[in-house]
Amino acid sequence: MSNYCGTSRIAGCQFSLHPMSDRFVDIILSTLEEVDTSKVWKNTDDVSTCIRGKMVHVFDVTKAIFLHAAKTGEHVAMNGTFSIGCPGDSDADVYMDETDTPLNEEKVKSISQVAGCKFSLYPLGREDYMDKIYEQIDLSKHRNVKVTSTHYATRLDGDVHNLFQALYESFKLIQDQVSHVTMTFSLSANSPTNQA
Amino acid sequence: MSNYCGTSRIAGCQFSLHPMSDRFVDIILSTLEEVDTSKVWKNTDDVSTCIRGKMVHVFDVTKAIFLHAAKTGEHVAMNGTFSIGCPGDSDADVYMDETDTPLNEEKVKSISQVAGCKFSLYPLGREDYMDKIYEQIDLSKHRNVKVTSTHYATRLDGDVHNLFQALYESFKLIQDQVSHVTMTFSLSANSPTNQA
Repeated sequence: MSNYCGTSRIAGCQFSLHPMSDRFVDIILSTLEEVDTSKVWKNTDDVSTCIRGKMVHVFDVTKAIFLHAAKTGEHVAMNGTFSIGCPGDSDADVYMDETDTPLNEEKVKSISQVAGCKFSLYPLGREDYMDKIYEQIDLSKHRNVKVTSTHYATRLDGDVHNLFQALYESFKLIQDQVSHVTMTFSLSANSPTNQA
Repeated sequence: MSNYCGTSRIAGCQFSLHPMSDRFVDIILSTLEEVDTSKVWKNTDDVSTCIRGKMVHVFDVTKAIFLHAAKTGEHVAMNGTFSIGCPGDSDADVYMDETDTPLNEEKVKSISQVAGCKFSLYPLGREDYMDKIYEQIDLSKHRNVKVTSTHYATRLDGDVHNLFQALYESFKLIQDQVSHVTMTFSLSANSPTNQA
């Protein structure tokens, strides 16, 4: 029952949410109340939260948490790493039995929020890792996302829904070709730097 | 002049600092005022800061920024990725002419601060990347740091000076063996979760 290779593999995301506000505890708690995480395995400590399950739900939950926190209007940042194919990674397999319908999309689709995002792909165990990055990732089709090169990362700017669509597709395409892949991301919304 | 391979290679760190406080702008600005970044190349935007130079200075500046922000007593998080050997990475080479003396150690060494940290090493372009991680990293000698396994990362707990020493040595050892390495980290200090 636990072998999903070839169909859908278990993915995960380790992330931390940072509302730059005295109300950070309330914002984090109310955000978590609004997001349905029942289709992913979840573990939280003082440093970060780890969720695991089908790729579609891992991205659905991550996006929903960022959107619900950002809609407070506070300056909110989210940092994390998506991962798939990590050797020995077999916990939470029961969550692979969930259906593919994302639980949070209906509730968050009306939230309009721009953000900046930097992300980096790390295909592991491959000498041709740079080729794999360049071959698989065509961000030019994401017309609603502004793409910029920066040191160590690619910067995306646009609506959060479009940013996550680009992240999801980049990650999905490359993990079809490479067994173990991680993708780091840093998201920032409502920064006073942009309002100045 | 720009070829430092074999002696010291240019390293970098892309990070973001998140004080969970209404005073986040003041904390970030006063922190940056207290930290001497003159031995590293630096670029900041609304998502993150990127510094580049000799490994010793990249770690010195990163640690000093976290310590000066955390000593305010506010809940502060810092997330980032250290990187070395990224192909095409040749900007800021002039900073490799700096001497090896860290500029911030004297000022921060008296700051005592505990924190939690999760980090992950990604040696790139190697089929034996898991072996390289296990071979090179012996965290057991860092007796003042508590080491725990978590999903996708290793957790370190202890004084920030000891945490950074463990991070620095892990990164330094593995980059002696592998050309292109990245290391992600998440640091958290003064979390109310720990004070409850």
